[in-house]
Amino acid sequence: MRYILVVILCWSNIHVSFSFQYKVNQDRIENRILTLGNYGKNPEGGVSRVAFSEADIKGREYMMQLMKDAELEVSIDAAGNIIGRRKGKNSNAKPIMFGSHIDSVPFGGNYDGDVGSIGALEVMEVLKENNILTEHPLEMIIFSDEEGGLVGSRALIGELSDQALQVISHSGKTIEQGIKDIGGDPSKLDEVIRKSGDITAFLELHIEQGAILDDQDIDIGVVEGIVGIDWWDVTIEGFANHAGTTPMNKRQDAMLAAAHLIVAINETVTEIPGQQVGTVGRIKAEPGAPNVIPSKVIMSLEIRDLSGEKIMEVFRSIKEKAAEIADNSKTKITFSHIDVSAIPAPTDPEIREFIIASCKELQISYKSMPSGAGHDAQDMAKIAPTGMIFVPSVNGISHSPIEYTSPEDMANGAQILLQTILKIDKTKK
Amino acid sequence: MRYILVVILCWSNIHVSFSFQYKVNQDRIENRILTLGNYGKNPEGGVSRVAFSEADIKGREYMMQLMKDAELEVSIDAAGNIIGRRKGKNSNAKPIMFGSHIDSVPFGGNYDGDVGSIGALEVMEVLKENNILTEHPLEMIIFSDEEGGLVGSRALIGELSDQALQVISHSGKTIEQGIKDIGGDPSKLDEVIRKSGDITAFLELHIEQGAILDDQDIDIGVVEGIVGIDWWDVTIEGFANHAGTTPMNKRQDAMLAAAHLIVAINETVTEIPGQQVGTVGRIKAEPGAPNVIPSKVIMSLEIRDLSGEKIMEVFRSIKEKAAEIADNSKTKITFSHIDVSAIPAPTDPEIREFIIASCKELQISYKSMPSGAGHDAQDMAKIAPTGMIFVPSVNGISHSPIEYTSPEDMANGAQILLQTILKIDKTKK
Repeated sequence: MRYILVVILCWSNIHVSFSFQYKVNQDRIENRILTLGNYGKNPEGGVSRVAFSEADIKGREYMMQLMKDAELEVSIDAAGNIIGRRKGKNSNAKPIMFGSHIDSVPFGGNYDGDVGSIGALEVMEVLKENNILTEHPLEMIIFSDEEGGLVGSRALIGELSDQALQVISHSGKTIEQGIKDIGGDPSKLDEVIRKSGDITAFLELHIEQGAILDDQDIDIGVVEGIVGIDWWDVTIEGFANHAGTTPMNKRQDAMLAAAHLIVAINETVTEIPGQQVGTVGRIKAEPGAPNVIPSKVIMSLEIRDLSGEKIMEVFRSIKEKAAEIADNSKTKITFSHIDVSAIPAPTDPEIREFIIASCKELQISYKSMPSGAGHDAQDMAKIAPTGMIFVPSVNGISHSPIEYTSPEDMANGAQILLQTILKIDKTKK
Repeated sequence: MRYILVVILCWSNIHVSFSFQYKVNQDRIENRILTLGNYGKNPEGGVSRVAFSEADIKGREYMMQLMKDAELEVSIDAAGNIIGRRKGKNSNAKPIMFGSHIDSVPFGGNYDGDVGSIGALEVMEVLKENNILTEHPLEMIIFSDEEGGLVGSRALIGELSDQALQVISHSGKTIEQGIKDIGGDPSKLDEVIRKSGDITAFLELHIEQGAILDDQDIDIGVVEGIVGIDWWDVTIEGFANHAGTTPMNKRQDAMLAAAHLIVAINETVTEIPGQQVGTVGRIKAEPGAPNVIPSKVIMSLEIRDLSGEKIMEVFRSIKEKAAEIADNSKTKITFSHIDVSAIPAPTDPEIREFIIASCKELQISYKSMPSGAGHDAQDMAKIAPTGMIFVPSVNGISHSPIEYTSPEDMANGAQILLQTILKIDKTKK
């Protein structure tokens, strides 16, 4: 996963060979990742730097100091997002924004969010070191409380509700209180809202939380979009009966029907061509005694895909199979859609092309892929052309003390982020 | 489900035609069932006459008065069993015992237990009315707290432990306190123990709690034995992973493996010839979130059959399939045997023949079958030749306010009980 500098292979393009002189500093990235990992460090490795905690506040202070040292104009917005602004030649141009987050899940690792935040800072460092003034103003952002539900980015697009502010975050505080504690002002959330057209482009660098890149030894994931998510509660109703006296052929066994359905869900999701995923993660049987044939099973169904239509295609196919299973098992199967769905957030095709072009220039291997996980980028995609760059995480592990991305891969990511920003800066109005 | 008295069809047998003159009184049975149903009656029908409750105590008083009126020598033993004794010609002969229980589950019905208790009393009534003195002493028994775990019969065979006495019964009282409240003395349980050889035979009449008799329009079930029960906790271990980022072919999904196993259990139990049943009634998935691939599923497995060997044959076959499923799904599947098992309790072949002969004499249809549910008879089978007679319960429903057995079927059962007792009396030493 290293790129080789073979200048003669770079197809001649003034801009490319020019911008590639600006090389990110792999050691600096690595050192900063490790230093940031001291804030909220766990004895078992990784960090518990949940949003609004003391560790989060200290980590943010560390990042803000680095951002000031990089000559950014640093501020905390009303939603607690840290924004580091760098002027552009054209003060009327709308900013190019890029960044990620530094809050972690409880017992998380040092790479989820951090790689994108340190990578964004690295872009600013390289521009400073090389005295490059872009056309557009640049804004590096560290979103607040990503792991608690994309709080900072939801605020930025005007979708953080009063109700959400009352949710208890991982820190034990309400989000409202947490935002206050990190220097925001929840009463002024209106001030942070960016509208469509306010931002030239948004970019996020992040570790890939599957194992696709690591497995296939690919350096960069060009994110096609953040998948949509649909949830259903599935209820299978049979008839509770004595597990001793009821012959096998007289049963209306909700558990058996549920088992057939789980198998059918897996088959359907797997057989239909595409990258969609489907999961049954939760199950409950009633009455739930070893000696009673279950009368009812309630289970979850989650389907994710880049295309909302594909999700519904898969769901319709599952429903058809469910009807057959219900018939055969003399049970009743119903699906109830849960309103926690995320709509698919496609990335901007032009930005994807810029990312791919950057990979080609640097002879870095790449692969187009969906993001199965949610990211702040999915909110930003609602108001701005958005791009997302993945780097490998070993074995696809994330949200874990053992998550790991190599310094080379982090540097690759930051380098591609830089190249892409420069391309956007040259091209987009 | 009525028998027709066509004397010319009875193959000539002095004993048969003789004993058949003693006909049970269907109206008396029905009236007593309905009267007993007043004790603990629920507004929604049926009874909540849980053991040791006020309703149970009143119901027992009602039964004891009837038993005294039938000229039985009535006593309550130290375990709270009601015993009504009738002398035999031969005072040295060991008694023939028969009976059932009158306690119910919460929100139970009027037939489970009651039919066998009232039926046993009816036998005594007919003998009294006809001035028949049997060779053997007869003992009618109403076992205490059957629904709480065969308390009375376990005491009778010396298997009611001190620990069991401390269990909280449906009444909210400990079993120890409950036994005291119905006139027993838990400190003297040793006095109630019957040993092998102490009882000539034991018989229980009961409703069939499957729907086999009702479905097939058969009058009498000749119980081949009470099935053995084996329980296992089955643990399926996979790997928890992000439901969005983990491609379908990279999953070690404990839920999917569990589903395949539930289907395989059903297939195995169904495909192997025999009357065995197998049930998965309880399931738990960890971590149990809709957006996380389950790392672990723990579920119950229950197998019942008349033959312990058959249970193990089915189990071995399930284990083989589980090993395949574990291989295919990259999960680990383990079975942990739970120590609540009941060993199979076969009934006495000679007594089964007497029951069958009685059915033939009376031109009542019959079917040999296992009892899938537990009964006091399974305890008694450990110390005495035991027989069990089933009558149909509509739709196989029991433990429910809507359980129902017709007066004709109850009378059939009591009549067969009487005939069988008379045959045992004539034959057994």
